[in-house]
This record gives sequence, C-alpha cells and structure tokens, in this order.
Amino acid sequence: MALSDLIKIERNEAGIATVLGILKQRFGDRLQTGQDVRRQHAHTTTYIPNQPPDGVVFVQSTEEVQEIVRICGEHRVPLVPFGTGTSLEGQTNAAGGGISIDMMQMNRILAVNPEDLDCTIEPGVTREALNTHLRDTGLFFPIDPGANASLGGMASTRASGTNAVRYGTMRENVLALTAVMADGRAITTAHRAKKTSAGYDLTRLLIGSEGTLGVITSLTLKLYGIPQAISGGVCPFPSVEAACNAVIMTIQMGIPVARIELVNALQMRAMKNYAQLDYPESPCLFVEFHGSEAGVAEQAESFGEIAAEFGGGPFLWTKVAEERAALWKARHHAYWASLTLRPGADSLSTDVCVPISRLAECISETEADIARMGLIAPIVGHVGDGNFHVMVLIDKNDPREVAGCEEFVSRLNLRAIAMDGTCTGEHGIGQGKMGFLELELGDSVDFMRTIKNALDPLNIMNPGKILPIVH
Amino acid sequence: MALSDLIKIERNEAGIATVLGILKQRFGDRLQTGQDVRRQHAHTTTYIPNQPPDGVVFVQSTEEVQEIVRICGEHRVPLVPFGTGTSLEGQTNAAGGGISIDMMQMNRILAVNPEDLDCTIEPGVTREALNTHLRDTGLFFPIDPGANASLGGMASTRASGTNAVRYGTMRENVLALTAVMADGRAITTAHRAKKTSAGYDLTRLLIGSEGTLGVITSLTLKLYGIPQAISGGVCPFPSVEAACNAVIMTIQMGIPVARIELVNALQMRAMKNYAQLDYPESPCLFVEFHGSEAGVAEQAESFGEIAAEFGGGPFLWTKVAEERAALWKARHHAYWASLTLRPGADSLSTDVCVPISRLAECISETEADIARMGLIAPIVGHVGDGNFHVMVLIDKNDPREVAGCEEFVSRLNLRAIAMDGTCTGEHGIGQGKMGFLELELGDSVDFMRTIKNALDPLNIMNPGKILPIVH
Repeated sequence: MALSDLIKIERNEAGIATVLGILKQRFGDRLQTGQDVRRQHAHTTTYIPNQPPDGVVFVQSTEEVQEIVRICGEHRVPLVPFGTGTSLEGQTNAAGGGISIDMMQMNRILAVNPEDLDCTIEPGVTREALNTHLRDTGLFFPIDPGANASLGGMASTRASGTNAVRYGTMRENVLALTAVMADGRAITTAHRAKKTSAGYDLTRLLIGSEGTLGVITSLTLKLYGIPQAISGGVCPFPSVEAACNAVIMTIQMGIPVARIELVNALQMRAMKNYAQLDYPESPCLFVEFHGSEAGVAEQAESFGEIAAEFGGGPFLWTKVAEERAALWKARHHAYWASLTLRPGADSLSTDVCVPISRLAECISETEADIARMGLIAPIVGHVGDGNFHVMVLIDKNDPREVAGCEEFVSRLNLRAIAMDGTCTGEHGIGQGKMGFLELELGDSVDFMRTIKNALDPLNIMNPGKILPIVH
Repeated sequence: MALSDLIKIERNEAGIATVLGILKQRFGDRLQTGQDVRRQHAHTTTYIPNQPPDGVVFVQSTEEVQEIVRICGEHRVPLVPFGTGTSLEGQTNAAGGGISIDMMQMNRILAVNPEDLDCTIEPGVTREALNTHLRDTGLFFPIDPGANASLGGMASTRASGTNAVRYGTMRENVLALTAVMADGRAITTAHRAKKTSAGYDLTRLLIGSEGTLGVITSLTLKLYGIPQAISGGVCPFPSVEAACNAVIMTIQMGIPVARIELVNALQMRAMKNYAQLDYPESPCLFVEFHGSEAGVAEQAESFGEIAAEFGGGPFLWTKVAEERAALWKARHHAYWASLTLRPGADSLSTDVCVPISRLAECISETEADIARMGLIAPIVGHVGDGNFHVMVLIDKNDPREVAGCEEFVSRLNLRAIAMDGTCTGEHGIGQGKMGFLELELGDSVDFMRTIKNALDPLNIMNPGKILPIVH
C-alpha cells in the first residue's frame, strides 16, 4: 500500500470542535489554533506530507496532560505528543486531526543524584539543556541523535545516535517513566534502582511506542561520569568493506570504542567541497575513545593497528580537544555538507540496521542502487551497531522524484530485513515505515495491535502511527 | 494478604484429566505423571510450598510447545514452562495444577555468529553449556546468576548476577526471542540487528514476564570477546558504609569494573570457618576488572587508591588466574559457607535493589533487623547495581520460623521500596513477592493486568504469578 493510503484516518469533526471549545476555555492562550503553529506541530522534516493538528496546547504539568487526555477520550479525539518536531518518520503528524500536546514548557530538571548517576527530568528538556545543566557535576547524558531533541521525544522514538555503541540507546538509559495513559491515569513504571525484576517492563514498552500508548511526562535517566580523557581521529580505507572489517575486528577485540562512524566516499567529497579540507575521497572511519589518559591512547593505538591490517590509514588521532574537533569536522558537519551536493534540494534521511557482518554488503548494494537510479544520496553510519543512514537529496515538489525516492527506500528496507536486520535502527516506524513492520516482524504485529487495543481502546493516542489503521 | 492465600487457584479437574489423556496419547513416555517428577517440577528452593503440576511434558520443538499450548487453551488448563528449577520466588509452581513444559531437551545451539557477536539458542541451553560451546571462539556470554540456569529461564525472570554492573542483565543481552503465545502462534520479536526502533519492544515485554505471556522457544543473545586480561582481588573495609562509598566513587570515576561484590562481616566469618582462610572479619569488596593488560592493572590501582581514601585495605589483587581464584574463594563459596552458620537449616535467598546512595543505609537497617529478630542471615551484594541478597537460615518445618522470616522479608521489601528501590532486583516476583508489586508500582499493575488479559484471555499461561488472581 502506498504511504498516501496508509496515513489516511477519518476525522471526527464534531468531537474536534467540542474539544477545541473546552480547551480554549480551560487553557486560554495556551491553546493555539493558528495555521503556522499547527503546521509547525506536524511533520516538517522529510517529504512525508504535513498533517497539522486542529489545535496545539502548551502544557505545564502532568495533571494538565491528564485533563487533556480525559477530554479527548470523552469526545473520541486524537492527541499527538510533540517535542522538538525533529522526528523523521511522520511521528508528529495528526493523521486524523485532533490536538497536539506541546511538551516543551515541561522543561524542568526535577532532580540530579550524582551519587546514583541518575536524574529525573520533564520531557521537554533537550539533551543539550540537560548536559549544560550537568556540566558542573562532572556527569553527562551520552545519547546524541544529532538534533537537539527533547528527551521525551527521544524516549518515544527509542532514539540513539553516534555513541550508542558504547553507552546504548534510550532503551538502556531510561530507568523509569511517568506516563499518562489513555484513560487519563498517570503511572510510574519503575523507580531509581539500577535494575529490577518487578513485573512487566512497562518502561521498555513505552520507550519506542511513539506516543501511541501513553504520553511521557517525566523520565529518570542514567548518567555517566565525563571521561577523564578522550582520544579521537579519522582513518581512510580503500573500501567500505575494508572499513567494516576493521569495525568488526575492533569490537571483537573488546576495544570499548565510544563512537565509530563510517562516512562514504560521496559524503567525503561533499565535505571537501563544503569546508575545503584536505580529506581523501575514500570511505573514512571517524572514531572516539573514552577512558583514562593511558587507556584512550592504548585504544587509539590498537585501533590504528587493526585499521592498517585492513589497508586503512594513515590514522590521524589526538587527545587534544581542539585538534579532535578539527579531525571530526567532516562528520559533525555531514548534514550541511551533504546539502551542497544538490543546492536547493530537500533532504530525506532514512535509516536501517543490519548485523555487522552484512553491513558492507548492505551498503555496497545500496550504493549500487543509488548509482543505478541516478540519485544523489550520501551515506553516514553508526557502524559499530550496523546502523546507517542514507540522505537522499530530492525535490519534494516533484512527484516523480518522491515516487522514486519511496521506491529506493522501500528496496533499502527490504534489503535490511532480508539480511536479518530491521527497517529502522533509530528513527522509528511512525508513518514512513508502517508498510514494512509486518514484513519484518510477521505475527508479532498482531500482538502489538492487541496491546494497543487493550491499552487505548478508543484509539486516541497518536493513532495511525506504527500500526496501520485496519479499514 | 498472606502468601498462602495469594497462591491459591481453583483447579479445573475435568480439563486437566482430559488434557492428560490427550498428551499421553500424543507424547507417550515424554509425558510423566509420577509424584517425584511432578514435585521436582515445582518450587523446591525456598520455604514457598511445593505445588506440583499434574503432568510434565518433555518437549523437543517449538511446534510441540504450540501443540500443547493449543490443547491447554482448548480445555482451559494452566501450563508452566520449566527450565532448571533454580528460580527463587515460586515461578515454577503449578498453583492451579496443570502441565509443566520441561524445556531442557530443547538444548541445541542453533547458530553462533562470531563476526556479529551473537548466537541463537534453544531455551534449555544452560549458561555453562553455552560458554563451554563458545570456548574456542574467544567469545563468552557474561550473565551469571550463580546457578547454572537455563537461558530461557534466565530471560523469563530477567536474571542478572555478579557482572551485570559491566555487561547488563538479560534485559540488555537478549536481541530477540521466539515465543509461543497463548493462542498457540509462535512469534519472532526481532531479528539480529544490534538495535531497532521497529514497533513495540515485545522482546523486553517477554523478558521478565515469567512465562505468564508466552513460552520462550528460542533466544538470540549478545556475546562478548573474552577479555585479553582480567585482574581481581579483595579489599576489607571498616564498615559497610565505607565499602559503599568506595563503590560509588569507583563508578562515578568511570572505572569499568566488571564485578564488585560486597560480603558482609557475618558472611566473612562463615567463610573463615568454612575454608580456614585468613580473611578479616569485616565487610569486604571483591572486585574484578576486564580489559587489556595495561588497562586492568591501571583499573585495579585506581580502585586501590579509592578504597584507601575510605579507610579500606589492604587491597590484595592479581592478574594471575589461579591467584585470583584463591582471592575470590570466599565469594564463590558464599552459599556453602553460609550454610555452616546453622548446620541442617534450610536457606531462603531474597533480593532487593536500591539506588546506590541508599545502599549502606538499607544494608545497615537490615543488619539491625536481623540482629533484633535473632536471625542468622548473612548478606552478599552485587553492589555496583545497589542489589543485595539476604540468605536467611531457617527450619522451614517450623511455622513460627517461617512466619518470622516472612515478616523480615516483608520489612526488607518495604524498606527497599521506601528508598526508591525495588522489592526484587533479579529474582522476580513469582509468588513470593506478589504482595509487594502494587505497593511498589501502584496503578502500573493495573496496566500489566490489562496486557495479561489481552494476551492471555483464558489465563492459561503460568497463572497466579506476578499478578495476584483477583478472586
């Protein structure tokens, strides 16, 4: 089924009008219905159509979320939680209209417990705001999906990013959640113990559920000590395969690499043009190591030896922060650099994840498909996890280009699934990948639907995401 | 409500008789109904009463499990998956009778993928069998709950153990499961990608569900390279508090300790008697570091400095395997040593987990409660996670002692919950802690029940565990 068919949901016009009236009375100017605000609160980051909500409420407490959920439930009106709007698969679209709940005014840091290496925050805190707040404690929160996303949104989409290979994803780094469920009750899924065997893992069930089971209103997160030392650098390889083999060996050897990013030849070329840097135009690995002074030097040296075994090098690395930033520049500016490959074009970022033994094959086939279709689409990967992104540069107003891009992404998803992988390693299903979930997980999707129906019988919680509506 | 009331479930005598007849015909000698076999397939490890199933089927394939689940469903007969029977909270008891499904003949290692650091196995493979099989690959599976448990059982109870502080628990180390659900369908919850954002996390929902949502019939596990070097040792401290403060500092400094175990003074005394070893009779930390030759020496030295800051020492450590085994002897033999404190007594092992900042306080209050009650009950803890065990030595045929022990454990659970912790860090809820789940998690338990009812509407999957039957 085409995406345009999957994302259609019937609107409950009468219910929506009633709810808007009630919310206006209750929230005054904190309910916004202007067209710009509504458009900004729907999907804006790829070619997936923008489906604005009918109103946006800027909430300030769990109790307010409970109130809105109850009102929406009573009148069968959909609601969509909203953070920074940086999700990439249409998660914030209001497919059947309804109310967007903007969580960004819930941005208090409720507690930081340095001895326990944890903190409790409201969902509108962004990762950068949290790390700025933590700076004096010597602690940090490692998950970095690129965008300065809200932590509630990152939990909802099970986000990860460049250093998941060392620190895990949101799945591993959320200890507990408070969430408002479809009946308006707020639950706390766990407390602050580092591990628990007490009952079903509702924390993990809510993480990655993209607002379809509950609205997250607080999170307890694991924190880490800022490493005593960091080393990092960049190493070119003769081929993607050689680079992937070096990654496999690095991980097998137990070198606790903190980041290991692949940038393909096209992306390196973009970077050269963008920043006039003296990089080679071949696939490169950008690596970073966290640990003690002696440890990070040892790790970098071991990595350099492994890279050389697979024909990589020279491996340029440093322990000096400014020099490291310079070496990593090509990776940090990848997004902006890639845009220069086709000035004026829109970008579509998609992601898949495969077992690392299949990664070189998956990337090579994808590069061949890109060439065959004449697309401009550089590749960047969190290759320690077998996860990579293709950024397709298209004109999203040209239906033929959009259709071509959909075809390309479809083949990419199927390729990853056929290689024992997944159609999304970190962006989520949203609307964009709904058509692939059942191909990947078969009957499991039926049981997901059973859970969704049981926990949200009126289907008001971000409907039409993850699980296609059965018409 | 007393445990004895919580664990009563009505028996469906007619259904059970019918199912036994069908299974006899289908499975012949692989259905066993002798009293000894039945008793062995129920709870045998603590004072929780033994509730034997009516028959035990030794299954050999997912398809056989599907068949049994369908037969049990048709006749409304409970089924209980069974591994090694080493669970500690009554998870294997057949509260309403029914069929025990013995998974131990499903013990094939289906695939080992060294490049991807993963393997796929049947649930009856034990952790020792897996590690023996892996020995030549240079890989290992780290989770070690003490007992040589089946990996299916370990997933079902969300087990962990001594090195969870470094490698995580079963929650973090299972990539995917195959499970037979209550309607007899087998699902695969994920594939082999290291991370995924594809839909609800059914893998994590099944892990820790103790057989109440599905029967696990295969697991894909993460593996790790055997560390190049290991250092380890033992360090006495003037008090539990001093030891806990050293643990906090070690973790805050980011020293990647692989194991950090607290043994309290009473347990150290038991050990001295048991093995005539020259240990001090004060609380000790047993530590282990995994990494490169230089790394593990550096880590041990850093730990020694931290220990000294808190009055600990001398810290005896080594990189030589045999010497390390000797230093760790007191920890490895803790169970047998503790039994010598009261020869002939039965043991009850219970566990709680609290934020590490509350650990010293929680242990001290517990030690005071033990003294006040005149119990003999040494303490051993996986203190890097804030998790500790009390082993109460009782005569389980003396109802007054059992009642006293229940009281003590009840207060321990409440103490941990009041400290923002959990009534179980790794043993699970089973029957033994059913009375505490709602005190810990409030309305969350209602949503667990909603999920249970939706996925197992006939309540045939290990009923009366985790969630008390509402009469």
